Amino acid sequence: MPGEIRIDPALVERHVMILARHGSDGGTGVRRLVYSPEWVAAQDQVAAWCAEAGLAVHRDAVGNVWGRLEGTEGGKAIVTGSHIDSQNPGGRYDGALGVIAAILAVRTLREQFGRPKRTLEVLSLCEEEASRFPGTSFWGSRAITGRIGPEDPDRIVGYGGETIAQAMREVGLDPARIPEARRDDIETFIELHIEQGPILEQAGLPVGIVTGLPGIRHYVVRVDGRSDHAGAMPMDLRHDPMAGAAEMISGVINTARSMGRPAVTTVGRVLVEPNFPAIVPDRVTFTIDARHPDPATRAVLNATHEALVTRAAADRGLQAVWDVSFDLEPCPSDAELVRTLEEAAREQGIPAQAMPSGAVHDTQRMADLARVAMVFVQSQGGRSHTPAEYTTPEDAAAGIRVLAAGLHHLAY
Amino acid sequence: MPGEIRIDPALVERHVMILARHGSDGGTGVRRLVYSPEWVAAQDQVAAWCAEAGLAVHRDAVGNVWGRLEGTEGGKAIVTGSHIDSQNPGGRYDGALGVIAAILAVRTLREQFGRPKRTLEVLSLCEEEASRFPGTSFWGSRAITGRIGPEDPDRIVGYGGETIAQAMREVGLDPARIPEARRDDIETFIELHIEQGPILEQAGLPVGIVTGLPGIRHYVVRVDGRSDHAGAMPMDLRHDPMAGAAEMISGVINTARSMGRPAVTTVGRVLVEPNFPAIVPDRVTFTIDARHPDPATRAVLNATHEALVTRAAADRGLQAVWDVSFDLEPCPSDAELVRTLEEAAREQGIPAQAMPSGAVHDTQRMADLARVAMVFVQSQGGRSHTPAEYTTPEDAAAGIRVLAAGLHHLAY
Repeated sequence: MPGEIRIDPALVERHVMILARHGSDGGTGVRRLVYSPEWVAAQDQVAAWCAEAGLAVHRDAVGNVWGRLEGTEGGKAIVTGSHIDSQNPGGRYDGALGVIAAILAVRTLREQFGRPKRTLEVLSLCEEEASRFPGTSFWGSRAITGRIGPEDPDRIVGYGGETIAQAMREVGLDPARIPEARRDDIETFIELHIEQGPILEQAGLPVGIVTGLPGIRHYVVRVDGRSDHAGAMPMDLRHDPMAGAAEMISGVINTARSMGRPAVTTVGRVLVEPNFPAIVPDRVTFTIDARHPDPATRAVLNATHEALVTRAAADRGLQAVWDVSFDLEPCPSDAELVRTLEEAAREQGIPAQAMPSGAVHDTQRMADLARVAMVFVQSQGGRSHTPAEYTTPEDAAAGIRVLAAGLHHLAY
Repeated sequence: MPGEIRIDPALVERHVMILARHGSDGGTGVRRLVYSPEWVAAQDQVAAWCAEAGLAVHRDAVGNVWGRLEGTEGGKAIVTGSHIDSQNPGGRYDGALGVIAAILAVRTLREQFGRPKRTLEVLSLCEEEASRFPGTSFWGSRAITGRIGPEDPDRIVGYGGETIAQAMREVGLDPARIPEARRDDIETFIELHIEQGPILEQAGLPVGIVTGLPGIRHYVVRVDGRSDHAGAMPMDLRHDPMAGAAEMISGVINTARSMGRPAVTTVGRVLVEPNFPAIVPDRVTFTIDARHPDPATRAVLNATHEALVTRAAADRGLQAVWDVSFDLEPCPSDAELVRTLEEAAREQGIPAQAMPSGAVHDTQRMADLARVAMVFVQSQGGRSHTPAEYTTPEDAAAGIRVLAAGLHHLAY
């Protein structure tokens, strides 16, 4: 038991503000897409902070930044961190706070307790949000866990039309070297992150210890009908993909709603072709994001969504096809790690509750090669993926104290 | 009674193909937006054809092209024509065929019967589709009928960000002179147009005589909610504008469908902000196009749509507001003109039926200052506002013969 670990809320806030300059998007917004100039500047800042904290800095083949504090006893590493990229635009906290937390926790442990027995590493992951390249979520943790295929860099095309391979080369990274980013010497990964939901705020708690992460599936559903004149084609003769898509969208959202917590289904993206007021569309394409932490209930949720899409298309003489662009099984946290973090919170006198995560995180990928857990800090109004997201410096510092105390248990 | 009026289908087809070169968009598509280089070339072609037909050519302040055949007895003019602009992209027939029909009808009358008693005019209207500037539908006929306000040219902004005033200046037109395009010396306006629906094809008829045009209202509905994380915000705490918009869209389309013919409601355009798969949107904006030829039933249709939008928003804690971007009362054809055209079809031995129009047309604006009617020709598969629209040369020629015979009744 380390005794009180001191983290100054003002210091946390200063780090948040400095990092938010890189990609600042007016007011509280941050637009820091992977491999952009802002992203380069942010990772440079992280590397500088790691070096100032006395850590050995390493940048890997996809642009993840590592800061290593070698343990006296060697062995596999205990790693903490999160991702440096943002939504387009997002806020100052999502991802960034976990990187800052990792730096401040390890720096504080070194300053207060010296060199650890076990090796500690800070990790600033290059990409998690898929905000520049659809379908690339977890680019950083996928590289570390060997989950990037050889064709992926040239196959993945961004919203701007460029491949991720091109974007990497523009910042001096060689896509052919991605396999070199793989690690097999990590024993533990702990990520601090803002909650992104309202649970902790409603409970009046600064910190949550995450018991598990949801299974998630992303569908891209394409509904094809027949374009017709908005006046001259009678309703009964139309094959209107908008009519079908609206019914599908309404149906999947209402399914998750009536299933109750923690089922969630979101349709966040819709594209209509040709998208003119007086033309019945040819095609409507939309995404479905469906999540549940329980494998069996998740299967029911997905099957219900698919049946709804199929039936609505058949009812209206439409063609509906879907791709599953992303699919991740539910990921329980390591039970022993959860107990360690709960104990750390108790010792530090920080009120905390165990809770599932609604969001997915790099942690879910890192679970391929390490035992994992997460620390959540309260999000004001539960806001996230928007410039309006906010976490108080006090809550952030409380979360970092729990993280640092947990790392102390593991590494000293 | 003029006896047989001869219109060669091959000649019609040749004119269609020549005009379709201006803005040809691959295959059968045409992309000829108002005041574009393609539009300039097409109006030049129309002016050349009018001159070759022995007509006095005049271009007015908004770029409408007129071809005048002076009658021996003077008096108000009998005008026929349609619009030269297209959807983005549209096909070869919508608008264009009515311009070609006007030229070939008046040219044939002059060649077969010499100078008329009453003045005949061909009209190629500059704009009808609102495909470059949302909300500018009928720019040509609005200028002729004095329905363009002094602020409109600088107020109306195109999908590309430019004002219609800028676009006019780029083709040498002075927006300040728009009032000069006004006419008060037109007695009759007859427009030939493709049907754009399946009614004539299903009846096995080449030609329809239009008894009236629908009332139409365009809404732009904006649904504001609250952006949240797609995983971390429970369904029961969301204010998801997508959930509301999908219910509204489904509701208005189903309302028109269950009301039965000739009610039609179309949602052709949807914009989602920020439009990312893993973010509950902040805002969904969509259009409603609702039409009915009967004033009382139209009022019920519109009121039902508005009530649906209001209720769905209230149910989900959303803000919904709408603008009526376009509203036009139903427009009956002139009964005597309809009888004249029906008689013309009988005399020419062309099977035709009286029918309402589902689409709106410049005719509806020209009704402000003239008695009006329309001639429809069969559309293959009822297709329109798409490169797939097609009318056979034989059906087109049949419609032009009815138009010419009707004009003969009126002018000779």
